Amino acid sequence: MIEVLRDGTPEAARQIDKLLSRSEGSERVAGDVEAILRAVRKGGDSALLRYTKRFDGVSLSAGELVVSEAELADAARQVPAEISRALREAHGRIEKFHKNQVEKGFEVRSEGIRLGMRVSAVERAGVYVPGGTAAYPSSVLMNIVPARVAGVPDITVVTPPSPQGIRPEVLLAAQIAGAHRVVRAGGAQAVAALAYGTETVPRVDKIVGPGNIWVATAKRLVFGQVDIDMIAGPSEVLIIADTTADPAWVAADMLAQAEHDPMAAAVCIATDVKLGAAIAVEVEQQLGELPRKSIAGKSIRKYGTILVAQTVERAADIANGIAPEHLELFVEKPRALLPSIRNAGAVFLGQYTTESLGDYAAGPNHVLPTGGAARFSSPLGVYDFVKRTSIVEASRKGFEKIAPVVEALALAEGLDGHALAVTRRLGRRGTAASPATKSGATREKKGKSD
Amino acid sequence: MIEVLRDGTPEAARQIDKLLSRSEGSERVAGDVEAILRAVRKGGDSALLRYTKRFDGVSLSAGELVVSEAELADAARQVPAEISRALREAHGRIEKFHKNQVEKGFEVRSEGIRLGMRVSAVERAGVYVPGGTAAYPSSVLMNIVPARVAGVPDITVVTPPSPQGIRPEVLLAAQIAGAHRVVRAGGAQAVAALAYGTETVPRVDKIVGPGNIWVATAKRLVFGQVDIDMIAGPSEVLIIADTTADPAWVAADMLAQAEHDPMAAAVCIATDVKLGAAIAVEVEQQLGELPRKSIAGKSIRKYGTILVAQTVERAADIANGIAPEHLELFVEKPRALLPSIRNAGAVFLGQYTTESLGDYAAGPNHVLPTGGAARFSSPLGVYDFVKRTSIVEASRKGFEKIAPVVEALALAEGLDGHALAVTRRLGRRGTAASPATKSGATREKKGKSD
Repeated sequence: MIEVLRDGTPEAARQIDKLLSRSEGSERVAGDVEAILRAVRKGGDSALLRYTKRFDGVSLSAGELVVSEAELADAARQVPAEISRALREAHGRIEKFHKNQVEKGFEVRSEGIRLGMRVSAVERAGVYVPGGTAAYPSSVLMNIVPARVAGVPDITVVTPPSPQGIRPEVLLAAQIAGAHRVVRAGGAQAVAALAYGTETVPRVDKIVGPGNIWVATAKRLVFGQVDIDMIAGPSEVLIIADTTADPAWVAADMLAQAEHDPMAAAVCIATDVKLGAAIAVEVEQQLGELPRKSIAGKSIRKYGTILVAQTVERAADIANGIAPEHLELFVEKPRALLPSIRNAGAVFLGQYTTESLGDYAAGPNHVLPTGGAARFSSPLGVYDFVKRTSIVEASRKGFEKIAPVVEALALAEGLDGHALAVTRRLGRRGTAASPATKSGATREKKGKSD
Repeated sequence: MIEVLRDGTPEAARQIDKLLSRSEGSERVAGDVEAILRAVRKGGDSALLRYTKRFDGVSLSAGELVVSEAELADAARQVPAEISRALREAHGRIEKFHKNQVEKGFEVRSEGIRLGMRVSAVERAGVYVPGGTAAYPSSVLMNIVPARVAGVPDITVVTPPSPQGIRPEVLLAAQIAGAHRVVRAGGAQAVAALAYGTETVPRVDKIVGPGNIWVATAKRLVFGQVDIDMIAGPSEVLIIADTTADPAWVAADMLAQAEHDPMAAAVCIATDVKLGAAIAVEVEQQLGELPRKSIAGKSIRKYGTILVAQTVERAADIANGIAPEHLELFVEKPRALLPSIRNAGAVFLGQYTTESLGDYAAGPNHVLPTGGAARFSSPLGVYDFVKRTSIVEASRKGFEKIAPVVEALALAEGLDGHALAVTRRLGRRGTAASPATKSGATREKKGKSD
């Protein structure tokens, strides 16, 4: 059973440190992944097909890489009506929420200078969808919708083939969300195909989506050549509960997190030691009833945490230090506590807002920063699929107005060429030697700290 | 002299490939940088001071790490009045532009569900300012202003000390822009101090600012623990010029780029072969007059490029493939060409809008995506110093409305624990075994492509 720890004790501090240091190393596969990336970059489709045969045990021709229209239609028919309806309803809600994230850019003018920021979608995006039991249609929606809402004109889904075929729910979700093609490829080889392009797979500008260590390492290595989303760490929930909380409901939410993965973390900060104890009992009891009790049990044993804090404000402080992916405010007045929350991926307010709502259908994205990254990262959103471009236009008058400032600063920095580009346009040709050029020699310095 | 290449020839294609593959490897210093990171993480101030002595040749006590108020005031007095005025004017324009980037977040309500996106500044930011001749006060402004406008409450500047002291212009720019402290530390050790915190240097959530290979490698290695800006590659300009362009002005702008760095690239796509030839002559001639001709000459010899394309539209196509950091539209009707530009960090329209304006004072940020990253990255901006948080609140009614969708999808994905968190709140306790649990065994699969 989870031990209830008191805030301020060394045991509590050690447990928080343990929560913050969950991670999987990627070093052990980096060499293999590099080799795969190089091979696909050079060999294109034929390398991609070779790895697909080797790792997924499926022999395909280049013509079979892209899932055909007929197969997509077939898949749609295979999905039970209830699931199909649920996917469409969830899609509608997710799309509606994300439309609020669309940015417009701006243009301002002043004294002969016209300045703007243009916001435009990236030209192509790639979405990785894991195979096997981790092929979640909800993740397909969550990764494609923000790209579509951003206006990305070309979206490629990659997902590993298996002898049983791709799950029909995944193919249906990809269609509902508006992917432009689904490619039967997975692992580092699929990431390579998206990053560099092959004869069949167009090179993309951004790759998103969860994956195993091979996929995560490949994304890390192609970053720079192409943009990527965050490398997702193990999932986590932190629940702040006061005495109004039903221990059974809190426990159910902790177990919903724990069933994801043995590395997942379910944490509760209760304001009362009896409440904490009651939650611990409920967790133990409900765990026995859970189909995925083997996975959830491992997570609960290692990372399941119940802390007791004096007040909800103190609980919020602890939460800010952890910066959890999911934060449930299971308290009497959740809105009153919200301003104290500074770091969290998504906040769920009140007893009816179980995290599951957000995982599937409330509307916000379920791809969230993990492992403390909520200090500086955001949920996946429309903003991840756009780029901004600065637009500058100076008339002669506008140019003349700021020319002296530009010349002064360029010369102060010893960049005479920058100043000269201005000077020439002013009709002067002289090269005013800059102070930095005159005295610069003594400043010239090469060293590790430059 | 730069050879004028015709679009469509193998020589032109090879030159574009060469431009796109400029980069510096970081592998050679990674081991040393890792050791520095570990030492500062463990040793704090004392490790930081030890490396400062070793690499910068300056012995400091912990009490001298932060530049004092008296020194800051001294520095402000040392800067010539003209430079000080120019810095303040530039700061005002940069701040005004960036204020347009402030995002508000949103809240929407529908049928018992209240959803929101909160936008809040990160709590602490760190700005790296290089030492020696690369200590550009304009970069200090460009890196601090977006953080301040975002509302970051604590901004630390780090810059390597030298026996001559920190440039007064840098200290003045940091004050004007509103940094909260300036720390005398540079290199990988300063990045480590920002990422992990020391007794004197607060741990930050985001590190920005340019630096040499040690700094860039350190940023890459601490990424995840803390957010970083893009790793800046060598700078580049692409100028599209039609026959209305003055070859001398085009050449001056190319040289302003080339003087940055031997790895910098100055590229012109001209619509006329005679124009291209005239620009080549001007580049050669003006190069001889440039104080930094040694640096600019190296850049021009290796990466200086003049291409001839049939039309400005074709030139725009080539530019989109290169996705340049800076793009000048030195053509008769720049506004008409703008919609054809899809990938560029900043676009400068018309003959008076030399890139230097944007480097110093027009208002937009001069920290821009390099090396083709403009396909998917943006100029440094206010959006780089904020994080978004999703807010979800369901009433009982709102919960009941979407509960069936959530249960259906959770069960379809085999995540019964997720469904149970909903079921319990509906007052039911039964564990509806999910279809995936029933049939899931055959799908279970471990492999490289999962």
